[in-house]
Amino acid sequence: MARTDFTEMACSVARTLGTVGEQWSLLIMRDAFLGVRRFEDFQRDLGIARNILSDRLGKLVAEGVLERRRYSSRPERYEYRITPKGHDLFPVLLALQQWGDTWAWSASDAPGRRIVHRECGRETRAVTACIHCGGELTAHSVRAEPLPAVLRED
Amino acid sequence: MARTDFTEMACSVARTLGTVGEQWSLLIMRDAFLGVRRFEDFQRDLGIARNILSDRLGKLVAEGVLERRRYSSRPERYEYRITPKGHDLFPVLLALQQWGDTWAWSASDAPGRRIVHRECGRETRAVTACIHCGGELTAHSVRAEPLPAVLRED
Repeated sequence: MARTDFTEMACSVARTLGTVGEQWSLLIMRDAFLGVRRFEDFQRDLGIARNILSDRLGKLVAEGVLERRRYSSRPERYEYRITPKGHDLFPVLLALQQWGDTWAWSASDAPGRRIVHRECGRETRAVTACIHCGGELTAHSVRAEPLPAVLRED
Repeated sequence: MARTDFTEMACSVARTLGTVGEQWSLLIMRDAFLGVRRFEDFQRDLGIARNILSDRLGKLVAEGVLERRRYSSRPERYEYRITPKGHDLFPVLLALQQWGDTWAWSASDAPGRRIVHRECGRETRAVTACIHCGGELTAHSVRAEPLPAVLRED
């Protein structure tokens, strides 16, 4: 059976998953947010096979979430930098981490990383807030509405 | 090569991806948040092969993010309901949708769904906000710190 192309679906969640949602791709982006830039460093940190890493980096560059930039000409060396499109994935990574902090650790081990908000200086947790009123957005406090076709066709 | 078990990694992002991060699993959760509860409805909406759907639903139930509940005894019928652990995935889905709304649509088509915040009544976008000061959390406004081993062993 042909592999499903999620990017063809009429849903933003599916399209995101089809574009950058493969598990290794998201872990590469996690590393990039943590400051990793070079192939060898991704490889060592992730323990990923080189051919898979190469494939996923290539895809992330093709999608425009990472940029491949030469930082040395002799020898020729490249590094991977997050683009603005890639930076917009930060809330996805933060939400994944937060769910894992809450649900994927047993009492005997604690999450390996804390997130400090530079502006207030405190160890933080993310709240998914409404851009208008600041109230928390939860499955119970929102409703999803299909857009009328007339709007979709704009 | 053996498939990598992301749940063994010392990182919450990886553990979340290993637990519920497979692409079909997240699309099933999206449907569940949109109110889908029955096997046939998931199957029709997702256009997914029945054996894959069955496998993923079973895994989501085993992980405790969905609960399989009998709603009819003659004939015997079951539906899938989101648990509190599953509800905590809402920010992940919302972040995925929002990235897709911004980056995965061309000018000629518009996202198929809008999110309305019931409390203020407006079409909303999510802001990832600091639980303490309410400021936005971005890759630039936070830093990730490894936890000292002494804290990790608590």
